[in-house]
Amino acid sequence: MYQERIRNKKLLDKIMSAEQAAAMIKDGMNIGTSGFTPSGYPKAVPLALAKRVQETGEKLKINLLTGASVGDELDGALARAGVVHKRLPYQTSNEMRKALNDPNGVQYQDQHLSHTPQQVRYGYFGDIDFAIVEACAITEDGHIVPTTSLGNSPTFVKVAKKVIVELNTSQPLELEGMHDVYIPHDPPNREPIPITKAGQRIGTPYIECNPEKIAAIVVTDIPDNVRPLAPLDDESRAMAKNLIGFLKKEVEAGRLPQNLLPLQSGVGSVANAVLAGLLESDFTDLEFYSEVIQDSALDLIDAGKFKVCSGTSLTPSAEGLKRFYANIENYKKTIILRPQEISNNPEVARRLGVISMNTAIEVDIYGHVNSTHIMGTRMMNGIGGSGDFTRNAYLSIFTTASTAKNGEISSIVPMCSHIDHTEHDVNVIVTEIGVADLRNKSPRERALEIINNCAHPDFRPMLLDYYERALKTLGKQAHTPHLLKEALSWHQRFIETGSMKIK
Amino acid sequence: MYQERIRNKKLLDKIMSAEQAAAMIKDGMNIGTSGFTPSGYPKAVPLALAKRVQETGEKLKINLLTGASVGDELDGALARAGVVHKRLPYQTSNEMRKALNDPNGVQYQDQHLSHTPQQVRYGYFGDIDFAIVEACAITEDGHIVPTTSLGNSPTFVKVAKKVIVELNTSQPLELEGMHDVYIPHDPPNREPIPITKAGQRIGTPYIECNPEKIAAIVVTDIPDNVRPLAPLDDESRAMAKNLIGFLKKEVEAGRLPQNLLPLQSGVGSVANAVLAGLLESDFTDLEFYSEVIQDSALDLIDAGKFKVCSGTSLTPSAEGLKRFYANIENYKKTIILRPQEISNNPEVARRLGVISMNTAIEVDIYGHVNSTHIMGTRMMNGIGGSGDFTRNAYLSIFTTASTAKNGEISSIVPMCSHIDHTEHDVNVIVTEIGVADLRNKSPRERALEIINNCAHPDFRPMLLDYYERALKTLGKQAHTPHLLKEALSWHQRFIETGSMKIK
Repeated sequence: MYQERIRNKKLLDKIMSAEQAAAMIKDGMNIGTSGFTPSGYPKAVPLALAKRVQETGEKLKINLLTGASVGDELDGALARAGVVHKRLPYQTSNEMRKALNDPNGVQYQDQHLSHTPQQVRYGYFGDIDFAIVEACAITEDGHIVPTTSLGNSPTFVKVAKKVIVELNTSQPLELEGMHDVYIPHDPPNREPIPITKAGQRIGTPYIECNPEKIAAIVVTDIPDNVRPLAPLDDESRAMAKNLIGFLKKEVEAGRLPQNLLPLQSGVGSVANAVLAGLLESDFTDLEFYSEVIQDSALDLIDAGKFKVCSGTSLTPSAEGLKRFYANIENYKKTIILRPQEISNNPEVARRLGVISMNTAIEVDIYGHVNSTHIMGTRMMNGIGGSGDFTRNAYLSIFTTASTAKNGEISSIVPMCSHIDHTEHDVNVIVTEIGVADLRNKSPRERALEIINNCAHPDFRPMLLDYYERALKTLGKQAHTPHLLKEALSWHQRFIETGSMKIK
Repeated sequence: MYQERIRNKKLLDKIMSAEQAAAMIKDGMNIGTSGFTPSGYPKAVPLALAKRVQETGEKLKINLLTGASVGDELDGALARAGVVHKRLPYQTSNEMRKALNDPNGVQYQDQHLSHTPQQVRYGYFGDIDFAIVEACAITEDGHIVPTTSLGNSPTFVKVAKKVIVELNTSQPLELEGMHDVYIPHDPPNREPIPITKAGQRIGTPYIECNPEKIAAIVVTDIPDNVRPLAPLDDESRAMAKNLIGFLKKEVEAGRLPQNLLPLQSGVGSVANAVLAGLLESDFTDLEFYSEVIQDSALDLIDAGKFKVCSGTSLTPSAEGLKRFYANIENYKKTIILRPQEISNNPEVARRLGVISMNTAIEVDIYGHVNSTHIMGTRMMNGIGGSGDFTRNAYLSIFTTASTAKNGEISSIVPMCSHIDHTEHDVNVIVTEIGVADLRNKSPRERALEIINNCAHPDFRPMLLDYYERALKTLGKQAHTPHLLKEALSWHQRFIETGSMKIK
């Protein structure tokens, strides 16, 4: 059965067990794997590696580069086994998060997802010893047909000294033809990326690979460890309603076409609610130029609303995956999976005029956004692709509920405790309370817009009080009024009392 | 004499005095002008407008959009007259700075310089009532031949309801042919910007203009109010030496070609020292893909080291300008002036693989950079093009002296009081002390790299103490160790005592 998926028959010799393949991985190696969201990542080999180290007590540390987040069989297992020295560019694993926040744990580099592959090629991380890539099939020429994500696999396979293929028979062969693999040349020889429409194909349906480089083929059938979708709550619905209402007004004002511009959407409950809201809206002929394709995107395809659905990863829920598999040939007409260097490419995002919609952890009154850190010090997940899109968007939008932790935290703060997106890049803030349009506004104008339109009433008077006292104290030195003694005091109060409120 | 410069003879009718042209400017108008650095900006009309308001006491406020900074005849005169309501996207004027830091003064939007022109076309600032553009000449078809900068003039002329041309006879006609004007289409119809080499020309040598839109031609001979160059000091020389030494090592490591990659350089004494250092170095066949062309670039052209010199503005010192005029036909072979949307374009910067070199006001121990604000609240100049280049660079470098104010301020701080460039974008920090290479490092690794290699010895123990106490206090919640109570205390101490040192 699986033999049919290895069309280059010489490579049948390379089939071995996960344990045998994992045995090739040595201390100090740089390992680049497939995977973007818990989708299309290798499973059997990392599990075998973790088991080996846990059983033998062997001293082994690797540097782990992926597309983005991966499933527990990779990040979780390796973090638990304590074998990861460096990790980049993104993660969402509980175990990995614990390890990277521990100074004796993992050294984590939180990167723009479009930066990683070119910096790998530029040599900024040293040589890649092994690429470990999940595949549906291997072609006659030894090229690799990827599975449910593309991520950084094309670059890892290109530069790695050796390649381990995890041939995953749980992934349907019909995925073949959905991918569009393109690796730009590096400067000084780079050419324009020739995408001018969100649905355009510019590459090959496989990852080019010299079969000589394939050191092992491991056959497995462990399925993608997809996450269940959180049900939509009222807060997310309210944010979605505010956001879609804002887009409608932009169309009415003539600043956006009737069918909008290609949409990028982060993941999570607000993103799902926004896409669900678009499903119910009057918008038609929409295009999606994003990273992650989830159930809500399938809904929009089914309803005929998404003409194009371009991403780097397909991560529906278990139910969504069934629906996708049942109708895969039809979805293939609309869905394109690209390398993250292309799905997230600044050049393409700016050219297409993407409308970016991402989630903030907190926003300050001048429009800076924190996407990554809790109370300034603890890493949540990472910036992911939000910066790639935000900086280059036609219109950049951030959503956040106005409060967190049962209302004890205000997501609108005097000063962000960590900044991932600066005032120069953020156009619009949406909370369940309302919309702040930051365009064509100075910092002082933005402060009032954000406080009045987006802050929770419990915190609005405190924010106004901060702003007004800062303004008064600074006199004529106040382009961006702040009281440095107090700017981070809301976070400090939360650390000390469990609430940002003054009780 | 000047009549020869107006080759469309029908337009001779439009010649009027600066006062007559200024009389067309009314309260509430959006005015977009030429000018980038004190070069190529209109002078006679703004002076006349300021005079009119000061003499009549008329109530008039305009919104002023330029390319970037402009000379005193524009920013200074209008700020003194109190006629500016909004100002964007950049300035360096003492008078304007005073006004925008005053809450009763000017509302300033500090923008990425590549963002402004497309956002003007997207309608984010409303209609542009007048474009006021300095010109060398007007062609037979009514098109405008710009002078020493291009900035946002092409877009302003394209979208403005009416155009006022300041025909400046102090600007030599030989400037014609130096410009390369290209305006991208807007989404969803934008095509790739076809530049693949720093020296490539893709546009027209003039700004396209419908002659019907020309409402006035004002003839003037006020020269560009260029700034004298500060002499190189030892600190700047030390930074330049460190930076060039780092580039040499990158070449040796095989991560950069022998002739580097196209260089972008900010302005100021360190930038001048770096370019002076390149002049003395072994590097040859260099390319410059930057914003501002100053004396040091002319030196590198004269020495045959710059094969290509692309920017949006030509701002030598008074002496440099003489040298340029004396040999203009020769310089024209190497120099190209582009609209700032192209000189600073993320697509092009990333494709060419620009090495960006910009100046920081302060840097924190995790690699965030403040380019704009003094003590978190007072605007200095603005972000300018530093973000356009930094985010998209092959290698992004920031320089700063390790201390300021006679050693009382450490430019390396626990946490920046304002952040313009995040940890995700900054590759290398250079001070006169040394070089911190932040690539392939986690925040904790970066902290030690920056403190040990770049901080001044007077502040190094304090920084280490902060970092170590943060690490200890946070335990296993320390991806980015900070003590929020202390993070901004160095700035607060400076405000209160005039020194960041504990005395």
